[in-house]
Amino acid sequence: MRLLFFRKDNKRIIKLSAMLSKSSTKYIQSLHHKKYRDAGNTFIAEGSKVVLELLQSGHIACNEIFGMEEWLHQHEPLIRKHFSGPLHSVTDFELEKISLLSTPNQVLAVFSKPAPAIFSPVAKITLALDQVQDPGNLGTIIRIADWFGIEGIVCSLHCADMYNPKVVQGTMGSLGRVKILYCNLPDWLQQFKNIPVYATALNGKNVQNIKGIKEGILIIGNESKGISEEVMQLATQKITIPKTGAAESLNAAVAAGIILSHL
Amino acid sequence: MRLLFFRKDNKRIIKLSAMLSKSSTKYIQSLHHKKYRDAGNTFIAEGSKVVLELLQSGHIACNEIFGMEEWLHQHEPLIRKHFSGPLHSVTDFELEKISLLSTPNQVLAVFSKPAPAIFSPVAKITLALDQVQDPGNLGTIIRIADWFGIEGIVCSLHCADMYNPKVVQGTMGSLGRVKILYCNLPDWLQQFKNIPVYATALNGKNVQNIKGIKEGILIIGNESKGISEEVMQLATQKITIPKTGAAESLNAAVAAGIILSHL
Repeated sequence: MRLLFFRKDNKRIIKLSAMLSKSSTKYIQSLHHKKYRDAGNTFIAEGSKVVLELLQSGHIACNEIFGMEEWLHQHEPLIRKHFSGPLHSVTDFELEKISLLSTPNQVLAVFSKPAPAIFSPVAKITLALDQVQDPGNLGTIIRIADWFGIEGIVCSLHCADMYNPKVVQGTMGSLGRVKILYCNLPDWLQQFKNIPVYATALNGKNVQNIKGIKEGILIIGNESKGISEEVMQLATQKITIPKTGAAESLNAAVAAGIILSHL
Repeated sequence: MRLLFFRKDNKRIIKLSAMLSKSSTKYIQSLHHKKYRDAGNTFIAEGSKVVLELLQSGHIACNEIFGMEEWLHQHEPLIRKHFSGPLHSVTDFELEKISLLSTPNQVLAVFSKPAPAIFSPVAKITLALDQVQDPGNLGTIIRIADWFGIEGIVCSLHCADMYNPKVVQGTMGSLGRVKILYCNLPDWLQQFKNIPVYATALNGKNVQNIKGIKEGILIIGNESKGISEEVMQLATQKITIPKTGAAESLNAAVAAGIILSHL
């Protein structure tokens, strides 16, 4: 590992140091687990696109960046607009040791978790996830929400952790743009009695006939168990994606994408 | 491992045999790799739902079933309608050794690949995948196609292998119901000059304005590179999923689901 320092005039001074230390390696590897992410209130993000988007989010503080030297040189001007800490230059081999990707992608960074999101479902569409436990699905849903301009997602307490590295990767950087709140979902829903609550179900109204909705909460359920009874009882309208074939169900993220595209 | 034999009157005779043999374990593990699947023209499927759906497909022959004893007992009548070979009863530990799932799910079976699919895009909607390389995406797309009653999917030669275990799991059993053909995609498209070819693109017609289509080929591209130029030139209509947020792209499977739901 080499530490790259910058003087105020932005001329680079490269200081050669020893290999990535054992303690740094262990620390980053510990962040693959929720327990340690929670303890330190930090998380990791990997890959050029994801790291650069999070750096630019404006509200997620970066603690450390471990990048291939060429990548650090290339993105130095952009990085320095948002981050003043030390940049660690790592080799392929070192990056592989701390990465969770099968093909590590040039950079891994440690970020501080921002304060829990605050938003209201009034006058907009909000997604509510009831036990979406697959990190890949949660990441994809966050990305879909960002595509459709959804401000916030409410996750039940049994959803996957939004800072799970697979979620972070799946969002492709959208994590910095969509507000996400974890809470007791039934309690949260009961606060908003005058807002329509849409639930995906097998016996609901055809999604193709539901249009031009500007306000409402859309609930997506657990893929195998669907929406829990307690949450379903709080829905004011059931929605169905019509099926013409034989598959028993659709992936939760695909269902979210289809419904949002119709609203 | 115990071999379960059945007499003609269907009374079970359980013969205790040694543990799952080393050669069986090695053989099944080899099928995690395309080279060996191709060599033996076989593939593996895991989990109760996927295995039972493939057994019932009517055109995919099963070679061997390795199941937990309780599972084999429970599903014996259904299994015996479609499969007359020996059933191998395995322990948790043995299943874990041959499984690719993080939580092995009761059964793993070896199937013979059926003959390549034959179908025509005339008078129906057909999906064409241009270098969809992520096995999870391919599996989800096959499942979406099955939901929307799509008869066939044409895959370019650089798509993920439909018999990759991750694809098989992702289809949740739809693999037995959707016809899938691998071929040189530009050559294949050129055969059907009078059929509309829709391509997902950033500058196309709003998908919400494209409706009631009963015939056409819908091309989905590689997630990072999109549709290749050679294939794009053969499209007769570009389609766009309107974006109101900031995400740069949508997951390929989500895009396929959204477009099919609008057609």
